Amino acid sequence: MAERYIVIIAGGKGERFWPQSRAARPKQLLPIVGDSPLLTQTVERVKPIVPAENIYIITSAVQEKGVRAICRGLPKDNIIAEPEGRDTAAAVGLASAIIGARDPNGVFAILPADHVIHNGKKYQSDLKAAFAAAAAEPVMVTIGIAPTEPATGFGYVQRAKPWKKIRRKTVYGVKRFVEKPDLKTAKKYLRSGTYFWNAGMFVWSVPVVDSAIAKFAPELDAGLQSIRAALAKGRKLTPVMKKVYPTLQKISVDYALLEKSDNVVVLPSTFDWDDVGAWPAVARHYAPDKTGNVGRGSRLIEQGSGNIVFSEGDHLVTVVGADDLIVVHTADATLVCPKDKAQEIKAAVKRLSALADGERYL
Amino acid sequence: MAERYIVIIAGGKGERFWPQSRAARPKQLLPIVGDSPLLTQTVERVKPIVPAENIYIITSAVQEKGVRAICRGLPKDNIIAEPEGRDTAAAVGLASAIIGARDPNGVFAILPADHVIHNGKKYQSDLKAAFAAAAAEPVMVTIGIAPTEPATGFGYVQRAKPWKKIRRKTVYGVKRFVEKPDLKTAKKYLRSGTYFWNAGMFVWSVPVVDSAIAKFAPELDAGLQSIRAALAKGRKLTPVMKKVYPTLQKISVDYALLEKSDNVVVLPSTFDWDDVGAWPAVARHYAPDKTGNVGRGSRLIEQGSGNIVFSEGDHLVTVVGADDLIVVHTADATLVCPKDKAQEIKAAVKRLSALADGERYL
Repeated sequence: MAERYIVIIAGGKGERFWPQSRAARPKQLLPIVGDSPLLTQTVERVKPIVPAENIYIITSAVQEKGVRAICRGLPKDNIIAEPEGRDTAAAVGLASAIIGARDPNGVFAILPADHVIHNGKKYQSDLKAAFAAAAAEPVMVTIGIAPTEPATGFGYVQRAKPWKKIRRKTVYGVKRFVEKPDLKTAKKYLRSGTYFWNAGMFVWSVPVVDSAIAKFAPELDAGLQSIRAALAKGRKLTPVMKKVYPTLQKISVDYALLEKSDNVVVLPSTFDWDDVGAWPAVARHYAPDKTGNVGRGSRLIEQGSGNIVFSEGDHLVTVVGADDLIVVHTADATLVCPKDKAQEIKAAVKRLSALADGERYL
Repeated sequence: MAERYIVIIAGGKGERFWPQSRAARPKQLLPIVGDSPLLTQTVERVKPIVPAENIYIITSAVQEKGVRAICRGLPKDNIIAEPEGRDTAAAVGLASAIIGARDPNGVFAILPADHVIHNGKKYQSDLKAAFAAAAAEPVMVTIGIAPTEPATGFGYVQRAKPWKKIRRKTVYGVKRFVEKPDLKTAKKYLRSGTYFWNAGMFVWSVPVVDSAIAKFAPELDAGLQSIRAALAKGRKLTPVMKKVYPTLQKISVDYALLEKSDNVVVLPSTFDWDDVGAWPAVARHYAPDKTGNVGRGSRLIEQGSGNIVFSEGDHLVTVVGADDLIVVHTADATLVCPKDKAQEIKAAVKRLSALADGERYL
């Protein structure tokens, strides 16, 4: 059987969890849920099925330092910083080039760094089935998350007929990928039972990825050639990355490869999953205190419930007579925002970046 | 004409403006409105009509240090700290004893330290008229504030017929003092045009005060005797204060003297006045920025209006998608409270004082 590799994509701009998250310290580098950063949790979750030397992290230049600081258990060269973000197809192509130089038939999983998954055993079991499928056949395995609500913030993948039973799990063919739907459509998807959330988790082999890139993204393929060539000659990755990576075609892997390929299959996940997209989602992972509020740090809520209150250091955050607020205090900035306006936090961060004195808080 | 004295009462517990105000730094020691502490503004406002050596401040032990720090222009001995609070009748009796030892026929004004008055000229003019009245006749002059709304948080004084014209101002007799009314009654008072807010501003002479205390508060009078005796012998005030003051009858000057005396008159004020009783009142004194919010310090409001945002240091307070909130950030504590719940801030401070780790924030 081909060897397994894990490629964790640690990107993100740190806007939606501002002020706790910052450009150089986005969500995956924070213990938003749990006691360690989400990236650490992701690495720990895959370690039982893949040795550390087979775990790669693709991150951004601005986050590299933070990522290295919390991933000391991984080989240094396995942490790769993109000189600039070129969307997911380039990252997948880069991962395939790096793994392919080591192991031309390697099978690798692409996994987001910042999702919350409590049930590690089921996650590992699903991943192992996906690895087995991708090792046995030239397929692209998507791990589909069964929707629990009519979410409009995710893309969906619709399954076709059963394709194969792998390790007692049914893997399905894929009828189609669909973009983020409106609420009415999302409700239809939820009812149908054949749609899954596309959580950006894919398992496939180097040859499958490389041939799909060659076929469906020739421009990207041409750009990746010099990276592959440098690695084939045993050269260091960084210099060629710096030169070539910023020129790569900027396109998502969903659009570039998955939507166009006819060898995509979907494995319905059996684990719990939450992408914790913004502050309000955090509340789901904390037990409310006796006043009906959640949070961390020094806080006092007088006559109020449903609040999310995070405070750093010994700083006391007091909420009086208010419900359903997000209050986040950090050393240099505090956010106050009703839970139902959390999608506007990005706008505030953007406005901040435009202010003369705003950069320092980003 | 008898010499004029000013006695500023600087008490208060610092609860309603928490976390900016603290037990040792209540409202009058803060620049809640304007660029200097309210006590400083009060002192500056009376300086044009009374020399510094005739200005006294009665404060509490916990605030003494803070008061001295901002009142360096006054003689040290003119700042008197009560060993413990014994309500306003004791403070007035003490003031009368101290001034009486210097000037047995002195006329003095009792003034609160923490009111906001922008029109100093009219204030001085009204005070001079009150001094003239109290010097000319053995009366207790109350400065009455014409109500602008049916406030239920103040006591009222109802005027009787005109008593005298002093310096072209009509001074009235007093029909009665009334406690804080309910809203219906307050509306009636507002309509009648004969009721004024009792703002705790009184002007009277030492003999008038002392004889009223002797007549209506004999228990307090007996307690004050040893203070008067010590001062008459040229002794220091502090030792006798420490011994006697905590034993004085605890009663308000309104209840002990004014409500019982038949020589009370009221001078309707001509100056603007605001006791700025809590955070929401602060907004009246700040020009809203272009987003319709008021405040001080580093702040960014994204989609929200009517907010009051105060921040200390370089700390950035960001409010996103919320209206009519009070957000106050200080070095060690932050408050978030809807404007219409500001009366509950006291409750939060009380709860805080009951917590094991709460004292440090008070």
